[in-house]
Amino acid sequence: MRIAKNSEVKEVEIVLKGTKGMRKRVLIGADNGSKDIIMRCFTLLPGGYSERHSHSHEHLVNVQGGKGIVVDNEGNEIEVREGYSIFVERDELHQFLNPFQKDFEFICVIPNIDKT
Amino acid sequence: MRIAKNSEVKEVEIVLKGTKGMRKRVLIGADNGSKDIIMRCFTLLPGGYSERHSHSHEHLVNVQGGKGIVVDNEGNEIEVREGYSIFVERDELHQFLNPFQKDFEFICVIPNIDKT
Repeated sequence: MRIAKNSEVKEVEIVLKGTKGMRKRVLIGADNGSKDIIMRCFTLLPGGYSERHSHSHEHLVNVQGGKGIVVDNEGNEIEVREGYSIFVERDELHQFLNPFQKDFEFICVIPNIDKT
Repeated sequence: MRIAKNSEVKEVEIVLKGTKGMRKRVLIGADNGSKDIIMRCFTLLPGGYSERHSHSHEHLVNVQGGKGIVVDNEGNEIEVREGYSIFVERDELHQFLNPFQKDFEFICVIPNIDKT
């Protein structure tokens, strides 16, 4: 068993084309012995956004703090806030934006796609 | 894509031997099209506890609200609170307790073990 205070887990900035003001913590992953799933926590700073993209694995998201905008496959913009969950299907286009004043923080769980 | 307010997702009471005051919401699961992972949210009422057990799938847990006690494989009791994450390995004995005054709420993610 591993117990961690999330704020003490190493945080890295995501530097990718199409991404701005995005930070990631791997709360639970392969380094902790997790075989099937990876739990990450992302912070989007005010004005930040993730890349608009799709991929073959699903996302299970839970908003931890602040509020943000999710852009769905069709380009619709939906506001979410703490206490909301979002399921992004395989191969679905998606993007997360933070046009607000406070950090937008969410957990994003994915299958351990490096296991094979 | 599916977006839900967690508090509006159907909540059920878990009635099992060795379990008391425990409620569950399946935030994202097979019914929503999730193939690989299930995201559940549990609430342990004050005085409540989960069964002490082990199983062949792992748990990735994030505490959403309140505080509680996690009992590990060796019987150690560790206090956790909002902002903590817990990884329970496969086949590891574990139990969650709430001896406190406020609801203890946590997300618990598992592989979709019904998919095979």
